[in-house]
Amino acid sequence: MTRKAQPTSGNAVTLMDVACAANVSRATASLVVRGSPRVAAATRERVEEAMRRLGYVYNRSAAGLRSSRSGVLGVMLPGISNPFFAEFLEGIETVLQSAGLTNFLVISGEEAASEGRILRLLFEHGCDGLAICPPQDMQATSVQSLLRSGLSVVQAMREISDRFDYVGPDYAAGMRLAVDHLAGLGHRHFAFVETGFCHSATRARTAALSAALKTLGLPPAVILRARMPEEDGSGLAEAIDNLRRDGVTAAICFNDLIALSLCGSLADRGIRVGRDFSVVGFDGMAMGQMVRPRLTTIGIQPRSIGRAVAERLVARIGDRQLAVARTILPVRLIAGETTGPQD
Amino acid sequence: MTRKAQPTSGNAVTLMDVACAANVSRATASLVVRGSPRVAAATRERVEEAMRRLGYVYNRSAAGLRSSRSGVLGVMLPGISNPFFAEFLEGIETVLQSAGLTNFLVISGEEAASEGRILRLLFEHGCDGLAICPPQDMQATSVQSLLRSGLSVVQAMREISDRFDYVGPDYAAGMRLAVDHLAGLGHRHFAFVETGFCHSATRARTAALSAALKTLGLPPAVILRARMPEEDGSGLAEAIDNLRRDGVTAAICFNDLIALSLCGSLADRGIRVGRDFSVVGFDGMAMGQMVRPRLTTIGIQPRSIGRAVAERLVARIGDRQLAVARTILPVRLIAGETTGPQD
Repeated sequence: MTRKAQPTSGNAVTLMDVACAANVSRATASLVVRGSPRVAAATRERVEEAMRRLGYVYNRSAAGLRSSRSGVLGVMLPGISNPFFAEFLEGIETVLQSAGLTNFLVISGEEAASEGRILRLLFEHGCDGLAICPPQDMQATSVQSLLRSGLSVVQAMREISDRFDYVGPDYAAGMRLAVDHLAGLGHRHFAFVETGFCHSATRARTAALSAALKTLGLPPAVILRARMPEEDGSGLAEAIDNLRRDGVTAAICFNDLIALSLCGSLADRGIRVGRDFSVVGFDGMAMGQMVRPRLTTIGIQPRSIGRAVAERLVARIGDRQLAVARTILPVRLIAGETTGPQD
Repeated sequence: MTRKAQPTSGNAVTLMDVACAANVSRATASLVVRGSPRVAAATRERVEEAMRRLGYVYNRSAAGLRSSRSGVLGVMLPGISNPFFAEFLEGIETVLQSAGLTNFLVISGEEAASEGRILRLLFEHGCDGLAICPPQDMQATSVQSLLRSGLSVVQAMREISDRFDYVGPDYAAGMRLAVDHLAGLGHRHFAFVETGFCHSATRARTAALSAALKTLGLPPAVILRARMPEEDGSGLAEAIDNLRRDGVTAAICFNDLIALSLCGSLADRGIRVGRDFSVVGFDGMAMGQMVRPRLTTIGIQPRSIGRAVAERLVARIGDRQLAVARTILPVRLIAGETTGPQD
C-alpha cells in the first residue's frame, strides 16, 4: 500500500494566516480553534469565517500530542447488528455532539479474539475515554490493561470490574415485572430463553428470575438456549412446542430479537402467540412495537442508557478524581399483545 | 473541564526498551509496530510479546504525523437507528479489520446541520478515507471541501458527485423486480411510499418505478410520504385504506422499516396483508424475515454493499491514482408473505 504524500507545509494555511485574515492575535485564533469560551461571539465568528475562507484545517492529531486530549471517544460493543445497540449508540451520540467529542466506534464481536488489538488501537489513538459493553469472554488481563492505561472508562449494560463506573438498567426489577405480569395472567410454568453467553447481564436476569418464581411459590423455569442471529427461530419454536406438553405456557426471552424470532416461528407452527402461548421480550426496542402482535417486553430504554453512559464519561473525562459510581436506571413493562391470560 | 496529565516521558516505555527486551534492533521493532510484512514470524512474536510484557503503547497519533496515515476511517451516515445501516456497518467492519484500519463512525443525521463540523473533525483526525452516505441536504460547498481535502472518498447508496467512487445497489432493477412481481400477481394500481427526502436513491427508484409501470401499460403510482421513525404507521395505513377505495391494491415502500410499520398498522385496521392488500419493502434486512407475515422485499444486501465500499476505499487509499469507478451491485426479489394474488 502506498503512502499519501506529505502535505507541503509551504502551501498549508497556518493559524497565523487565519489570525491575520481575521485581524486578531494568534493566541485568540488558537482559543477559537480549541473551542475556548473565553472569546467574544463576534470575534469567534470572524475567526471561523476566516478559517472557512482560507480552508484552514486544525490538526487535532498534533494538538492531541500537546494537550493529551484527542476529542475521540471509544465505544466497544459486542456487536452492532442487534438494533438495540443502534438505539444505544444514538443515545451516546446526542450527548457527545454537544460535548464536542467524536464518536469513535469499535465493533468487537461477542468472541473477543481481536479484543487485544482493539484496546491497543484505542490507546494508540489517544482516546479520551471508553464506553464499553464488554464481550462475554473479556480477559482479566484486558481489564488490567484498561486500569493501567488510566483511560476514563464507563461500563454499559455489563459489568466486569467494580473499579470502573457502570451504567445499566435494573435487570432484576425488569425480570420481576415480567414474572409478575405473566403470573398475574395465570401462568405458572415458564421457559427462559437465553443466549448461552455468560456475563453479568445474564447472571443478573437468571438470579432475579429464580428469586421471583420462588417468591411466588412457582416452579423453576426451564432454561433454553438460542444462538442468535445465526439460528432462525424454528429450532427454538420446536423446543418450546415440546415443553408445552409438560405444561410450560410462557417464555421470557433474553432480548427482543430472540422474542421476535420465536414469535414468528411459533406462528409458523400454528401456535397463536398471546393466546396459545405467551412470549415476553427484554429491551423495548422500537421494532417490537411496529410488528403484530406487538411485543410484550421490558423497556430498558437503550437510548436513555446511551445518554447516561456518555454523560458519565464526559463527567469523568472532565474530573478524573470522581468516585466510581454505579448507576441503575429504571425499567418498565411494555404490555403488548404477545402475552395473554392462561386458564 | 480539566486536562489529563501528560504522561511523564521518563516513565514511559519506549520502542528502544521493547527492542532491548526482544533482543532486536530498534529498526526491527519499528517494523513490527508498523505492521510491516518484512519481519520473520518468530521475530514478530518476540517483539509483540515484549510489547505486551512492558505495556508498550504505540503512539499512532505521533506516528500519523510522520507517515500521514492514521489508520482511521470515517463513516458518515444519515442515521443509525435503521437496522439497515447496522448491517451495512458490519460489512465495512469485516473488511477494515483485515486491512488494519479502524472504524471511525460519524453519525450525521438526515438534517446535516452539523455536517460542516463533522467534516472538519474528519480532517482534524487525519482520516485516511471516508465512506459516505450523504445526508439529503449535503451542500455543494461540503462536496468542494471534500474534493479539496484530497481525502479518499467512496459514496455509498447515494451519489452526490461523479468525482468520487460510488458503490450502490441496482435500485432500478430492484424497482422493476417489485413491479413485475406485483403485476404478475394481478395488481394494476400501486402506491409508492417514500420518505420525503430527496436524494439519488429516491430519484433512481421513482424514475424506475414510472418506467416499469409505463412499460407494462399500467397507470402511474400514487406517491405517499412517510416520516419515519417519528411517525408510527397508523396515519400511513389510514391513507392507504382511503386509496383502496380508488382501486389501489399494493404498496411499494422506500425501505423495509416503512414496510414493516405499514404492515403492522394495516393489520390494526383489520386489513389482511398479503391477502386484502400487498406490501413490498426495499432493503432485505434480517428483521423482515423474522416477523410474520414474512416481508416481501428487494434484497439489496447491506452487508455486501458495506464490504464493497470498504474494499474500494482500501484500494483507493492504497493507490490514489485509481480512476473513479461506479460499482452497481445486483439485487434480488425476496418473495415473502406480504404480497398475494389480486383478482
